[in-house]
Amino acid sequence: MAGNTFGTAFAVTTFGESHGPAIGCVIDGCPPGIPIEAAEFRTDIERRATGKSRHTSQRREADEVEILSGVYEGRTTGTPIALLVRNTDARSKDYDRIAEQFRPAHADYTYWHKYGIRDPRGGGRSSARETTMRVAAAVIAKKWLAERHGVRVRGHLAQLGELTPRAFDWSAVEDNPFFWPDATMVPELEAYMDALRKAGDSVGARVSVVAEGVPPGWGEPLYGKLDAELAAALMSINAVKGVEIGAGFDCVVQRGTEHRDEITPGGFLSNNAGGILGGISTGQDVVCSLALKPTSSLRLPGRSVDIRGEAVEVVTTGRHDPCVGIRATPIAEAMVALVLIDQALRHRGQCGDVGPQSPLIPATP
Amino acid sequence: MAGNTFGTAFAVTTFGESHGPAIGCVIDGCPPGIPIEAAEFRTDIERRATGKSRHTSQRREADEVEILSGVYEGRTTGTPIALLVRNTDARSKDYDRIAEQFRPAHADYTYWHKYGIRDPRGGGRSSARETTMRVAAAVIAKKWLAERHGVRVRGHLAQLGELTPRAFDWSAVEDNPFFWPDATMVPELEAYMDALRKAGDSVGARVSVVAEGVPPGWGEPLYGKLDAELAAALMSINAVKGVEIGAGFDCVVQRGTEHRDEITPGGFLSNNAGGILGGISTGQDVVCSLALKPTSSLRLPGRSVDIRGEAVEVVTTGRHDPCVGIRATPIAEAMVALVLIDQALRHRGQCGDVGPQSPLIPATP
Amino acid sequence: MAGNTFGTAFAVTTFGESHGPAIGCVIDGCPPGIPIEAAEFRTDIERRATGKSRHTSQRREADEVEILSGVYEGRTTGTPIALLVRNTDARSKDYDRIAEQFRPAHADYTYWHKYGIRDPRGGGRSSARETTMRVAAAVIAKKWLAERHGVRVRGHLAQLGELTPRAFDWSAVEDNPFFWPDATMVPELEAYMDALRKAGDSVGARVSVVAEGVPPGWGEPLYGKLDAELAAALMSINAVKGVEIGAGFDCVVQRGTEHRDEITPGGFLSNNAGGILGGISTGQDVVCSLALKPTSSLRLPGRSVDIRGEAVEVVTTGRHDPCVGIRATPIAEAMVALVLIDQALRHRGQCGDVGPQSPLIPATP
Amino acid sequence: MAGNTFGTAFAVTTFGESHGPAIGCVIDGCPPGIPIEAAEFRTDIERRATGKSRHTSQRREADEVEILSGVYEGRTTGTPIALLVRNTDARSKDYDRIAEQFRPAHADYTYWHKYGIRDPRGGGRSSARETTMRVAAAVIAKKWLAERHGVRVRGHLAQLGELTPRAFDWSAVEDNPFFWPDATMVPELEAYMDALRKAGDSVGARVSVVAEGVPPGWGEPLYGKLDAELAAALMSINAVKGVEIGAGFDCVVQRGTEHRDEITPGGFLSNNAGGILGGISTGQDVVCSLALKPTSSLRLPGRSVDIRGEAVEVVTTGRHDPCVGIRATPIAEAMVALVLIDQALRHRGQCGDVGPQSPLIPATP
Repeated sequence: MAGNTFGTAFAVTTFGESHGPAIGCVIDGCPPGIPIEAAEFRTDIERRATGKSRHTSQRREADEVEILSGVYEGRTTGTPIALLVRNTDARSKDYDRIAEQFRPAHADYTYWHKYGIRDPRGGGRSSARETTMRVAAAVIAKKWLAERHGVRVRGHLAQLGELTPRAFDWSAVEDNPFFWPDATMVPELEAYMDALRKAGDSVGARVSVVAEGVPPGWGEPLYGKLDAELAAALMSINAVKGVEIGAGFDCVVQRGTEHRDEITPGGFLSNNAGGILGGISTGQDVVCSLALKPTSSLRLPGRSVDIRGEAVEVVTTGRHDPCVGIRATPIAEAMVALVLIDQALRHRGQCGDVGPQSPLIPATP
Repeated sequence: MAGNTFGTAFAVTTFGESHGPAIGCVIDGCPPGIPIEAAEFRTDIERRATGKSRHTSQRREADEVEILSGVYEGRTTGTPIALLVRNTDARSKDYDRIAEQFRPAHADYTYWHKYGIRDPRGGGRSSARETTMRVAAAVIAKKWLAERHGVRVRGHLAQLGELTPRAFDWSAVEDNPFFWPDATMVPELEAYMDALRKAGDSVGARVSVVAEGVPPGWGEPLYGKLDAELAAALMSINAVKGVEIGAGFDCVVQRGTEHRDEITPGGFLSNNAGGILGGISTGQDVVCSLALKPTSSLRLPGRSVDIRGEAVEVVTTGRHDPCVGIRATPIAEAMVALVLIDQALRHRGQCGDVGPQSPLIPATP
Repeated sequence: MAGNTFGTAFAVTTFGESHGPAIGCVIDGCPPGIPIEAAEFRTDIERRATGKSRHTSQRREADEVEILSGVYEGRTTGTPIALLVRNTDARSKDYDRIAEQFRPAHADYTYWHKYGIRDPRGGGRSSARETTMRVAAAVIAKKWLAERHGVRVRGHLAQLGELTPRAFDWSAVEDNPFFWPDATMVPELEAYMDALRKAGDSVGARVSVVAEGVPPGWGEPLYGKLDAELAAALMSINAVKGVEIGAGFDCVVQRGTEHRDEITPGGFLSNNAGGILGGISTGQDVVCSLALKPTSSLRLPGRSVDIRGEAVEVVTTGRHDPCVGIRATPIAEAMVALVLIDQALRHRGQCGDVGPQSPLIPATP
Repeated sequence: MAGNTFGTAFAVTTFGESHGPAIGCVIDGCPPGIPIEAAEFRTDIERRATGKSRHTSQRREADEVEILSGVYEGRTTGTPIALLVRNTDARSKDYDRIAEQFRPAHADYTYWHKYGIRDPRGGGRSSARETTMRVAAAVIAKKWLAERHGVRVRGHLAQLGELTPRAFDWSAVEDNPFFWPDATMVPELEAYMDALRKAGDSVGARVSVVAEGVPPGWGEPLYGKLDAELAAALMSINAVKGVEIGAGFDCVVQRGTEHRDEITPGGFLSNNAGGILGGISTGQDVVCSLALKPTSSLRLPGRSVDIRGEAVEVVTTGRHDPCVGIRATPIAEAMVALVLIDQALRHRGQCGDVGPQSPLIPATP
């Protein structure tokens, strides 16, 4: 209830501050029998890592995941899986000044008011470093979803400030540090980022995630709707200010005849719904999109107050991304995967009788 | 876990189908001592009611709320409050045809696949009729928020298809059937709706909700963030396809220097954050916005399939709104109020020691 | 979280006060497709009913269960099932005196201190009348357990004051108003009860419940252990002061060689474990037992205080049972059934892959 | 939902297997501002430790608790507190034989059937080693309860096999390795244990826990009753087969006039209720008792089957306690403390308005 557990059937509890001894998570409810080893976490952890390129911030940590429990002889046992990552790059420096100031657009001010105390080192609990554990937990989720249901979850950057892709190719996405689906634009993006860095400013981004292969029937109406849980999951990522499913805000100007996805014996004719109707998956691609605000830590000074309410000028020095949205791509994928496995397990719990063996008309194929 | 309970500390469980005997809810965790009587539900229920004007659908029900429990001599007792509304307008008609067809953009197809069975009468559980109980439960939430914390939650239509307000005046909102903040545009909106109705088509809408007076400190990072729970709450409303907090998707093209809300001893200088930083309220207005898809029930025929997978043509006859988004305004307010009271109670549970009586620096005023 | 919902996958939320307009419940998460009609609730409701015989209290209500939602054409649909029972026997009388006094061994004193307000009519929310809805909800649970898994849950009175059965015959249990397994002792029990009634006093009881046919594998260690959840479920029944699983408190003096249930290829050789090891069912009978305190409402005056802290003498007039434990039998059965269905659905959610289709060694037969 | 989280407002999630790399827990919802340092865990960890005396098993681990998060400059911050204990004494040996056998009265058989896979090393997840983390988490709970509410939680052994204390003195409890309240009997207990060890057998025990200073008002009826949650908490401890509150099973033969705790202006005249009425604390001592079965790991051979269903003879070699119940004392205290802090925070969330500042009559002092 205090907010650090995500999911109910596949429940991920994360812990850790940016500059404390370690970050980690506990996954409770994982299906038993999934083969997993520590090395499998590397790819996605690396994709999210802040030191991936010069276009994202410069923290370079090994981020080796240690499996502390829940796996025996290379398979999940159904008991809690604890994953641990030590913070090796937590530089000791003088936090006294930052500890007394509230950086604009950061969580400093609100943590202070909520708890009456805060860990100011590197953003403490509110740092995006925590998302490492979301990505780690989702590695197991993605694996089960793929092996058990053939589900594939992948994302890409859909907008970087004013720039949008002029072409779309999934195969390009993993070949550039921007998760950008149009390879020809990469030099343009690099120049754009360099200009921002030079100016000491930052910009927002849009990320899209698509889940293919989701069978019809996942989602728990009315308050555990698949889209409602996706919205919460994505909005819980640092810096996110908006979430869309399918047509999203474009639906405001659509006509009903245009928006409704007609159905034929061969399938749906469009996907404005983003694969979800009434909060339940339709069997089409689940499509969602999120808006990330520009990085708040800037070299350009900003006005603020300190803990005594006096005016101060805040300048952030050191490493930072001109666009935090870029590395949100694997995090957004992770959150979608975590929602899907959770809904899949809950659906199986309640509706496992639905099918040929039941008195009901066969449902999920 | 099966999805029909909203909230944890102030938990609202709703039940009921559109054309079953009744709809209702149970509120568990309500603070004791709140004065409440059945008549107080009328205003918001009426605001949401489908029969409010010729621009919304024609179902006319008394929708009298009966208080079944949890209130003694006009005050809440802290025990579960059950509210009941009988379905008096549930016309008996032949549902055989509709029971075998999946209406495009409706939940028919997905409920069928999920549960193997569905109540086809008036949309069954997926009908927006259920939202009556969200509005009813929120009447109590709004009252506590106002009396205990001075919080005011109100919403308005922010876009109707292509139309946006040219002026903004809260006082106009409740004086027209569109919750529109620009009184001069009402004739234009009426004409727009009449044209849609004549064409047998529909259009989407955007609704905005503002909560004033929220103190700093509400929100449970990281997965129970105030914005994450608002996103889930709003996305759980029928027909919603997008949610924004503060600047929302506009933040994608903002620069960091533009987006960050600077702070002075006199307060914040802007509110791109929408009153939330790090998932915790800042003390500014909490501002959110949602996109609602166009009504799916249309007189214009649409292609679909039946339960045997054969092609059919679906035509919806009878009452319907050309824009379901209009009456979503009080529903969206309700969901925001329900999130806020839940977060307020949870915050008090964990952080009730924060303040002058604790060793910590005083926090929430 | 506020305590009025039982279960997570099969979640039952109850509401209602003894002398309010109605009591009821909402069942969320029920598997779809279960045939159910209102008449099926009668048997167990009747078994629990206070007016069953002269040996239990004299309230005579029809207690007809109305199904408000979640059932369509005689089958559960997977959406919330709301059940309602109107309070028809709520006599109007003067509650002023009782409203200001705290009856010894009742919840008056604690509700007053917790909530600062209480409904004094007939015990309000703390009345055993609420257990009607537990029994009603369990009718559906028992049906699914029986049809899907062959599970049978039944209980009996195991001790009435100093009296214990001299013989045991399940077939006798339902043929006397005491749920007593030894038919020859019924006259003795009647005399015992008559003497108590005449004396104006009351006595405690012990109830045992046995669930046959539970497959191995149900239970969620470590905190959702099957026995832990049974303990909570049974202790939540009015007047219960103790719970045992299997050998219970007798295990204190047992030797390890005596207590451990040895296993042979033909099965377990004893059942001191009560069908549960490590919090998970073994496949043997699940056996539990509970102690119920003597009725607290007595004609014999007792010392207490009023809301101003002044000494008063409390005398309870009107109907009451000399032994509330008797009619706890069907309530205890109900709670066991509710725990079992909840655990069954949760187990299926997490471990539905375990079996021949998985890479794991086949488990649940 | 999968069972490894205890509590809702003060939620403790534990992880780890007996012979895996580590055990640990994450505490979510801890009030901010509590001073805590790693050394404070030592006392209770040591009290629970298996190597305390020759009368409990011989595993000798340092069991140093590392605080990984949630504490900054010696105070809790309100964010998740992760505690870690490395398993340093996990001897490598041949588990092949034990991995294929089901030890009688152990969880081997049920874990195998539930998950289709199990970690056989030292009992894996079902080992009592996990309770170390319950004790660690409760150190923080006890501290807050004591400092904020003056609550003191302590336990003692109340029965060892056939032996019961002939005198009662709290001050004796911590001065002998049996938590026994009668110092004169210690030699008798030592001889009793030595005889058991020599015989290769074991015996059960009864532990009692008393919480003094609990204010009236804690507990969430009807399903989150204080006694219901205590019952679950205590029954979740390894080897527990019975739980009692107050008079417990003795109430079966009590008369109502004897059991009811009369009240005078000076307070209650007895405490058969064990400090709980209607599921809510009365302000009296909260008193509970639990039965622990005899140790199941015995040198004396027992009949069982292997994973192929074939008969085997099981003999446990190596370290073990003749009475696991002894060291359950600090574990039982821990569970009581965890229940109390959780209920305290939940109560404050819902009923924080009850008091002088509310329109209600002042309640909790």
